[in-house]
Amino acid sequence: MEKYLLISDFTYIVDTLFVIFSMTLIILMVPGFAMLEAGLVRTKNVATVLTVNTMIYAVASMAFFLYGYEYAFGTWENSSLSMYAAFMFQMAFVGKTVNIMSGGVSERVRIIPLSIFTVIMGALIYPTVVNITWGVNFLEGTALALSMYDLAGSTVIHSTGGWALLAAILIMGSRRGRYMKEGRVRVIPASNIPLVVLGAFLLWIGWFGFNGGSVGSITTKEGADAVALTIMNTNTAGLAGAIVAGFIMYIRYRKFDITMILNGALGGLVAVTAGPDLYTIYQPIIIGVIGGILVVFAVPIFDKMKIDDPVGALSVHLVNGIWGTLAVGIFASDPENGITLMGQIKGIVVVGIFAFSSSAIVLYFINLVVKFRASDEEQMKGLDIEECGLEAYPEHQRSI
Amino acid sequence: MEKYLLISDFTYIVDTLFVIFSMTLIILMVPGFAMLEAGLVRTKNVATVLTVNTMIYAVASMAFFLYGYEYAFGTWENSSLSMYAAFMFQMAFVGKTVNIMSGGVSERVRIIPLSIFTVIMGALIYPTVVNITWGVNFLEGTALALSMYDLAGSTVIHSTGGWALLAAILIMGSRRGRYMKEGRVRVIPASNIPLVVLGAFLLWIGWFGFNGGSVGSITTKEGADAVALTIMNTNTAGLAGAIVAGFIMYIRYRKFDITMILNGALGGLVAVTAGPDLYTIYQPIIIGVIGGILVVFAVPIFDKMKIDDPVGALSVHLVNGIWGTLAVGIFASDPENGITLMGQIKGIVVVGIFAFSSSAIVLYFINLVVKFRASDEEQMKGLDIEECGLEAYPEHQRSI
Amino acid sequence: MEKYLLISDFTYIVDTLFVIFSMTLIILMVPGFAMLEAGLVRTKNVATVLTVNTMIYAVASMAFFLYGYEYAFGTWENSSLSMYAAFMFQMAFVGKTVNIMSGGVSERVRIIPLSIFTVIMGALIYPTVVNITWGVNFLEGTALALSMYDLAGSTVIHSTGGWALLAAILIMGSRRGRYMKEGRVRVIPASNIPLVVLGAFLLWIGWFGFNGGSVGSITTKEGADAVALTIMNTNTAGLAGAIVAGFIMYIRYRKFDITMILNGALGGLVAVTAGPDLYTIYQPIIIGVIGGILVVFAVPIFDKMKIDDPVGALSVHLVNGIWGTLAVGIFASDPENGITLMGQIKGIVVVGIFAFSSSAIVLYFINLVVKFRASDEEQMKGLDIEECGLEAYPEHQRSI
Repeated sequence: MEKYLLISDFTYIVDTLFVIFSMTLIILMVPGFAMLEAGLVRTKNVATVLTVNTMIYAVASMAFFLYGYEYAFGTWENSSLSMYAAFMFQMAFVGKTVNIMSGGVSERVRIIPLSIFTVIMGALIYPTVVNITWGVNFLEGTALALSMYDLAGSTVIHSTGGWALLAAILIMGSRRGRYMKEGRVRVIPASNIPLVVLGAFLLWIGWFGFNGGSVGSITTKEGADAVALTIMNTNTAGLAGAIVAGFIMYIRYRKFDITMILNGALGGLVAVTAGPDLYTIYQPIIIGVIGGILVVFAVPIFDKMKIDDPVGALSVHLVNGIWGTLAVGIFASDPENGITLMGQIKGIVVVGIFAFSSSAIVLYFINLVVKFRASDEEQMKGLDIEECGLEAYPEHQRSI
Repeated sequence: MEKYLLISDFTYIVDTLFVIFSMTLIILMVPGFAMLEAGLVRTKNVATVLTVNTMIYAVASMAFFLYGYEYAFGTWENSSLSMYAAFMFQMAFVGKTVNIMSGGVSERVRIIPLSIFTVIMGALIYPTVVNITWGVNFLEGTALALSMYDLAGSTVIHSTGGWALLAAILIMGSRRGRYMKEGRVRVIPASNIPLVVLGAFLLWIGWFGFNGGSVGSITTKEGADAVALTIMNTNTAGLAGAIVAGFIMYIRYRKFDITMILNGALGGLVAVTAGPDLYTIYQPIIIGVIGGILVVFAVPIFDKMKIDDPVGALSVHLVNGIWGTLAVGIFASDPENGITLMGQIKGIVVVGIFAFSSSAIVLYFINLVVKFRASDEEQMKGLDIEECGLEAYPEHQRSI
Repeated sequence: MEKYLLISDFTYIVDTLFVIFSMTLIILMVPGFAMLEAGLVRTKNVATVLTVNTMIYAVASMAFFLYGYEYAFGTWENSSLSMYAAFMFQMAFVGKTVNIMSGGVSERVRIIPLSIFTVIMGALIYPTVVNITWGVNFLEGTALALSMYDLAGSTVIHSTGGWALLAAILIMGSRRGRYMKEGRVRVIPASNIPLVVLGAFLLWIGWFGFNGGSVGSITTKEGADAVALTIMNTNTAGLAGAIVAGFIMYIRYRKFDITMILNGALGGLVAVTAGPDLYTIYQPIIIGVIGGILVVFAVPIFDKMKIDDPVGALSVHLVNGIWGTLAVGIFASDPENGITLMGQIKGIVVVGIFAFSSSAIVLYFINLVVKFRASDEEQMKGLDIEECGLEAYPEHQRSI
């Protein structure tokens, strides 16, 4: 028996604990997304949105467990921490890409075709993106091989989900009555603001695990500093995004639109996600401010293009996923270690082309068999009756 | 001064941190149960359900602190981690048994008699079950001594709560108007689906602490693997239960009933709880699938027997508590280490007889003095006015 | 390369992990406060309350990051754990003081002036209090130097927020229509009880991180015991406060008022916060019982004085902040280590005078430029329309 603790034992044990802690925070994002989206849609579609979020977690995780994980990483084996913890951490990510996508087509998307798409996303599309970025990398040695730095997935998670969403919106179209003949956009108010706030903060807190855990190891002094810096920088970008979004809305409309403030925060959080371990403690302020600005201005632009995204997911996840990946090349370029702006751009483009086109193809073929889009009549009645056979708040009078 | 860290110090410190982390997740189940049950009942009973959940946590924990803990374990002393952390971990469990019971008699149970029962449950009934399973075991050496393997309480927590609930339903009867003369069951819809989803996911996440923490120690490589495997298997069974419940509901009714999907997940989670550290990574799929099926079919069977359980607690906790305990005997039988199917069955029977009969006797005598059941008139007005003197959503029109 | 783990490395790494864990729990208090307050106010003011809570977190944290932290502690450097984790832990506290204050003036306070006040609070007022208690202490060597023991801020956080609130209420006055001519108090019911319960339990769980983390180090056996004891004692005081509040309400009114039960719990939690590491395991029962009693009796007293505090923040945070700080002097007096009742009283008085007067001055001058108080007409319409341009639940009929 040894009397003193071996460093190798310490690393294995405490990194397992650290990764379990991080994973738990990420799973909090499941109710986080569910509450955020349930709050942002109309009462008549709330139960469907919640069901979609629940099914995504169950189906995407199971598909990743049964196939996607090994395809992405090549092996379950892991010598530096428990392989079961390593799996759970990666599994906690996979549903997020579909969450991003499902949120943006809510109030019209049906559950069955979305569940089928979730299987493909969890087993093939997302694992392919992971394979070529964080995983075994079947592109290695080819001209397409990527050198993008993307700590916790500005591109791998957020843009991938965003590209899938863009493909889905193009196939499904906008909600019934959203864009009126005379070119005006019909305002469809969020039905439950407390849920929006609760959901956004669960996401914010989950992000600490998402980005902090992605550092991978806390068991050296340098590792501990990297994890803590990552969490701090993540938070700072969220603060900056919220403040700037609030400020702009007040300047323009003399109103504090809380949904936009929270989307600003989320935009900042997405933007910092590619490199929070590389930045100084002040750079995330700039990154988050730009993230917040991008959200505030992208939301009306997508509406002008008649791209109907009820929760602002394209602005938050796609636009800021791209911005965040570029930010690493701008603020933390380090050619000696292979981090260049060109490498970042190449990563954005390659992943974007793959994620968009593969999602579009899969969505197209599923749509031939089972229509994604609920009919105008179903949308008018609300999806909950048709899809779930129940109402989210049956005792509260409905007026919209 | 030592320069290197002693293994004994490491074990004590990091297991204390691990158990505090796990305990915190379990306490998240307090709002978890509260939100789940508040969402499942009608608006007019929501405040009462929430008050009951709050009082249970306060009263059961205090009773366990002042008497039950020492009765169950014989001593506060603990050499392998901080005794205060060990207490908090066990204390986090005790309210769950009453939560299970109170949920199933909601919309008719009054707060005062339930609080009295909670004292007895927290100080005596539950600690007795713990005493003979995880504790000092006063049955040791007798023919009744148990050798059941029950890592985190499929029987000790979930069935115990379920048996108490069965006794309570038999004493209190069904809700006013639930079973109509012509034999039909009146459908009483859940009033707030977002709360149901939020509550279910807080429970799910809390389960990671519940089961993971029950491994007891993370401070060896084997311990770290056992904890991580336990959490992974716990999650897998939940995924499987959700998917199968959703699938069955869709096949039968062409609807995704989100409350049943979540109850399927919870059924899977209860079922895996007896032995998540013993299974391979694929066995929890089978265990969870059967768990989900059991929930879907048990719910209407209890209704056919006029056993009125508004939240499905008997199906989730009692039926799957039994199934989960059997599952250890089926999938992880290990006679050399004393794990046999017969041992599991004996445990189910002994604990069941004790939990049901002791609860029934205590409930019966309390009921002689203070009636558990609110009158039909009070039920019609809603319990909130009578019990709490307030309404849960006073500004939202009530229609049921 | 060393083969065995150095104690100094272990301390640095595991205390960083411990502090990150604690900080995460504290950040859960952000949605905790938001849900609690959103549930306690009327529907027409819910979005404003939520916006205020979000802006406070963003603005106070940013002000503390850019100026307050270094002013309070003199340096960012830290040798015993990662300085980024140390910062995040302290940053998680700062918004709480403003949360306490904003809750008590809700349903009439406007967002812009409150945000301006938040900058001053986060950069100057709160950091000054920290400076003279936990920080570099510019009073050292003067007659005003404090020797108060206040582990996690009964005075530093809760009373400071409470004094700022008292100043704010005196400047802003009561809500329109709260106190009627004939001297009666108009009852204004909470609009959403589930949110109140959810918020209170998120606060309760956050308190484990707040108080446990304030011990500072878990990496010795003594440290692990101190952390675990702190968490246990924190919880016990909350249990006691809830039980006693429920009991008193039942004795007096035959009703279980869940908002008062939860405020009783919070009162107990505030009261134990000054010295949970110093008490035996039974003393927190007394401290919490007195805390709960103080809340129940202080709430109507403030109303009699026409001090209008919609969420009971003065009773919970100011009254119990004072009581909790005194309790250390009563139950844990230890003159050899400088803990005396007189020292505690001196701390209460000095911090109180500073916090009240500095807040009053700052509030007064801001109020000259931008009125804090929404007009009677705006209050009648509800602040959400004017301040946020949206409604919290637009599809639910409003009746109050």
